[in-house]
Amino acid sequence: MKKILVIGAGRSAVTLIKYLLDNSAANNWQVTVADFSEDLAKQAVDSHTNGKAIFFNVTDEKQREKEIADADIAISMLPANLHITVAKDCVRLKKNLVTASYVSEEIAELDESAKQAGVLLLNEIGLDPGIDHMSAMQVIDEIKENGGELTSFKSFCGGLVHPDYDNNPWNYKFTWNPRNVVLAGQGTAQYIENGDYKYIPYTSLFERTEHMEVLDAGEFEGYANRDSLSYRKSYGLDDIPTLFRGTLRRKGYSEAWNIFVQLGMTDDTYKLENSASITNREFINMFLSFDDALTVEEKLCKQFSLTTDSVIFQKIAWLSTFSENKVGIENASPAQILQKICEEKWTLGAEDKDMIVMQHQFEYMQNGQQKKLNSSLVVFGDDPRFTAMAKTVGLPVAIATLKILNKEITTPGVQLPITKEVYAPILKELEQYGIEFKEKKVPYLGYNPENVIG
Amino acid sequence: MKKILVIGAGRSAVTLIKYLLDNSAANNWQVTVADFSEDLAKQAVDSHTNGKAIFFNVTDEKQREKEIADADIAISMLPANLHITVAKDCVRLKKNLVTASYVSEEIAELDESAKQAGVLLLNEIGLDPGIDHMSAMQVIDEIKENGGELTSFKSFCGGLVHPDYDNNPWNYKFTWNPRNVVLAGQGTAQYIENGDYKYIPYTSLFERTEHMEVLDAGEFEGYANRDSLSYRKSYGLDDIPTLFRGTLRRKGYSEAWNIFVQLGMTDDTYKLENSASITNREFINMFLSFDDALTVEEKLCKQFSLTTDSVIFQKIAWLSTFSENKVGIENASPAQILQKICEEKWTLGAEDKDMIVMQHQFEYMQNGQQKKLNSSLVVFGDDPRFTAMAKTVGLPVAIATLKILNKEITTPGVQLPITKEVYAPILKELEQYGIEFKEKKVPYLGYNPENVIG
Repeated sequence: MKKILVIGAGRSAVTLIKYLLDNSAANNWQVTVADFSEDLAKQAVDSHTNGKAIFFNVTDEKQREKEIADADIAISMLPANLHITVAKDCVRLKKNLVTASYVSEEIAELDESAKQAGVLLLNEIGLDPGIDHMSAMQVIDEIKENGGELTSFKSFCGGLVHPDYDNNPWNYKFTWNPRNVVLAGQGTAQYIENGDYKYIPYTSLFERTEHMEVLDAGEFEGYANRDSLSYRKSYGLDDIPTLFRGTLRRKGYSEAWNIFVQLGMTDDTYKLENSASITNREFINMFLSFDDALTVEEKLCKQFSLTTDSVIFQKIAWLSTFSENKVGIENASPAQILQKICEEKWTLGAEDKDMIVMQHQFEYMQNGQQKKLNSSLVVFGDDPRFTAMAKTVGLPVAIATLKILNKEITTPGVQLPITKEVYAPILKELEQYGIEFKEKKVPYLGYNPENVIG
Repeated sequence: MKKILVIGAGRSAVTLIKYLLDNSAANNWQVTVADFSEDLAKQAVDSHTNGKAIFFNVTDEKQREKEIADADIAISMLPANLHITVAKDCVRLKKNLVTASYVSEEIAELDESAKQAGVLLLNEIGLDPGIDHMSAMQVIDEIKENGGELTSFKSFCGGLVHPDYDNNPWNYKFTWNPRNVVLAGQGTAQYIENGDYKYIPYTSLFERTEHMEVLDAGEFEGYANRDSLSYRKSYGLDDIPTLFRGTLRRKGYSEAWNIFVQLGMTDDTYKLENSASITNREFINMFLSFDDALTVEEKLCKQFSLTTDSVIFQKIAWLSTFSENKVGIENASPAQILQKICEEKWTLGAEDKDMIVMQHQFEYMQNGQQKKLNSSLVVFGDDPRFTAMAKTVGLPVAIATLKILNKEITTPGVQLPITKEVYAPILKELEQYGIEFKEKKVPYLGYNPENVIG
């Protein structure tokens, strides 16, 4: 009997744990689900014969060592900064580890010792990072094998609400960590276009979006992610002239969100003195130019040259931004208050489903011809528990775990799922769960000023 | 013979040192000028009989202690973060200390021990902070003594080029630390207007300026300083409905500088990979939307809806922003590159003089009537060495030192020049050096939408 230790039973782990339990009898597995909340662990195990739920404190060295030593493989679904202590134990105790998080510097430093110990630390095998790496590398390798040379790679991903439950003017609900959505894009986005480095400051980010259609899911817009440049190295595209990664939202989201950005309402670097006592209306008024002859709504419209019946104004107003509701959070930053305001309106309802959308856009030279290929994915959630997010994050982790236990994936060290050994079998099995990319050759239009990210 | 120790002989110390030496014979002073550059110290002392120039390393504990112990009073003109070690020695060795810098948290913590030791640590006694405190408190105290109640206090200060040497389209040259000018305003400006807290993010700062005339010096615009709120406490204006502090530039500066801000060219948080090899033109192009049909100039104009004969475009172009000059700095941030580009054009010429402009605007109720009073200062530099900046920073420090040695200023502890005991004699003597505020009663117009900071 093989023992699998899953550390962390939060929202993103439910599909993963279900997959492991569903396959436990056939594979003769015992699945231990360890969480700081024993209730959460129990809920995930759901009294399955081959499952065991335990209280687990990752900072308890003794318990951590005991559970890892006792397992054949570990999966860490903890917050990213907590993986390192687990990973160090795994190397020492010679146990393989799977995570869905970006490789931190600390984790990267374990590469040599992991290789010496013959331990595989497989990271970035969720959705983004994860499915994005695997699906992109499959096409990139294929283009290269067929003698093509990549000239442009653009890749977009977004977590959104299922179209059937998309019933607000933003066409958006929180399907993931709200704080990350409110803070999204802070810093400077770096990418490369036609061989030139390009930098977009946060305050222009939501003005410089790219528009696209994805399969039957309709129209989207993408804003630039912070770091596109590092993908040149990991994808073996060191000399590619254009490389851009972005986040998808429904059309019109960015233009309205940009109002909050321009006003400074997404700032998380300072606290408002009187945050507990103010109303939503007083909150937005703090960021508007003083004018004792105008209402708060009029001041906003004046500052941004909007009318009250404009789509942007309607979005802002729909969030109850102008209401007399009390904010009611002590010592909060503007971003924390804005998050709370958004949460009251953007939280998924009990019946709501979510959606994951991804699109890779490849341009390449082949036999002297410039070609273009889009590879797209749309995944819908089953219900509020088994969301598209939980599926797309959890299933690659689960399948990778299976392949490692079956010795189909073996190369030791700190690894990403970018080699054929890893991505091919996983992508293949993901198709059985409805996670399947559709490739489409599209005409190469060259530079198109109406459709440019800038 | 009284011994004065001046630590730091940089640009802002020259007038201070000259004052002390000029008055040394009459007062029987010996002035020791200590600097890490002995040459700089010697230059400042200029072989004066009562002066002594020494090499001084502030981190050399032994030397620091010896020189402070040997002095009757110390003046620190070091960078602000270095005052603390000097201040601690002064408390321990029971020597008074004068600085022109803001009170840091570390310095504030010395208050109790300084009081116990009977030591006066007088800070913020330069120009801004310094002359601003003293001149504002003189009017505030006067209004209060006459039964007036302050309803609004706005205060502006700027270091600019003398009008006779003002010969570029920005009407600006660096008269002070260029780095601070390039980074000016980063963060969020906080102030209070009509009882409401107001916050201006960096990206709106240069769009929300207030316009004013100052004496005969012409028209200016002011953008908000980071922190206006803390002045409520130090000026005893806890309940004032409006309190705003700002920085002055010539009209039109902010609108053009804002282009750099919006593009992200003032960002100091990351390094450009290829900063050593790029040209000015390539630098600005990094921040412009890609468009292979337009020149760099055209892309800028398109992005900001400018024409090439607009005043804004002319300002940007005059800085050689579009030139093929090499930037030539390794591993530089955008802000560092922009600073270098500005320095090539904005450095004061060998004959150029500078100017200091300050204006306080007071509104108050007196006998049931709303009144308004402006108090304004314009100071011109004598030459590139004895600048208006060096005079207005150095003379208050020097005069305060004299008054402390003469026991006219005695209250121990960590002090600001906000009590009559301190400001009255100093402001009086400053008048002899042409540093004199002009008060003017102006009509109270109430709220004026065309002239508001917002």
